[in-house]
Amino acid sequence: MPYAASLEYALHAILHLGGLPSGSVLSREDLARFLGLAPSYVAKVLQQLTKAGLVHGRRGPHGGYRLARPLSAISFWDVIEAVQGHGAIFHCQEIRGRCVVFRDHPEWRLRGRCEIHTVMLDAESKMRTVLRRNSLARVQRRLQTKLPRTQRDAIDAWLAGAASEPVVPTATA
Amino acid sequence: MPYAASLEYALHAILHLGGLPSGSVLSREDLARFLGLAPSYVAKVLQQLTKAGLVHGRRGPHGGYRLARPLSAISFWDVIEAVQGHGAIFHCQEIRGRCVVFRDHPEWRLRGRCEIHTVMLDAESKMRTVLRRNSLARVQRRLQTKLPRTQRDAIDAWLAGAASEPVVPTATA
Repeated sequence: MPYAASLEYALHAILHLGGLPSGSVLSREDLARFLGLAPSYVAKVLQQLTKAGLVHGRRGPHGGYRLARPLSAISFWDVIEAVQGHGAIFHCQEIRGRCVVFRDHPEWRLRGRCEIHTVMLDAESKMRTVLRRNSLARVQRRLQTKLPRTQRDAIDAWLAGAASEPVVPTATA
Repeated sequence: MPYAASLEYALHAILHLGGLPSGSVLSREDLARFLGLAPSYVAKVLQQLTKAGLVHGRRGPHGGYRLARPLSAISFWDVIEAVQGHGAIFHCQEIRGRCVVFRDHPEWRLRGRCEIHTVMLDAESKMRTVLRRNSLARVQRRLQTKLPRTQRDAIDAWLAGAASEPVVPTATA
């Protein structure tokens, strides 16, 4: 199974929280409405992103969520780690150590790193480099170039309309 | 986790079928015994590898499995596709198309490719390049350099002892 669907939700959530007016927050319900997703999915994703320190929750009548750091400091890899717990594509279970030949030669069991694992780690490292180099700010910039002005304005207007007024944070949730 | 444990079983199974004496086959039970895995796991993996055309099954009293092509022509990516059905690490569900702003502007829904998907495809492509370039023959060569002679001989002797005598194939299973 590839990365879970919640990764797609999380990446879009982060991207659009990055489009909020400075200092304001968006409620979980409004974020779910904006994305067109079930509030329960969005709640779970926000919980993971908050736990990973990518998002801040604010309680109270003007409560809601905002990014904990700028979009330029949030990479795809950060989001993957937040929702998957780890980003590894392959978990070596060291099955080589179960080979029948090692019954008589236990000293050979796990000598060095498994050569199969080595190749998987190399592949993963190449993938991770791309995911670390790409911040969500880069996606935002590409969208600003690509989308028609009217569309960008409509998105910004919706988010600004739903966002709370900027207030001084009093507590984190 | 993107890749299931069965991938590790499949990669090790292919590697060791590649160590059989030319023309011989290994029964499913002996392959499971060699790898130290439950026969049911190995059966499932062999079924997937056979379906993908990486392995040939031969029925009858001298029945068993052998590679359908040389190890040098079997890449990590071939094995991933065989056991996963696809190798994609991310499935874009086009959730951008559900954004509330598109209710009034359906013509904006799915313009071009999602920029989030674009980054994931780039990462996947870098990973896939490594997995396509690495054949299981390369792993076999590395093991021949790395393992002590006595260990290689013990592995070869076990496989040769369990393998059927070479026979002319009469049917494929």
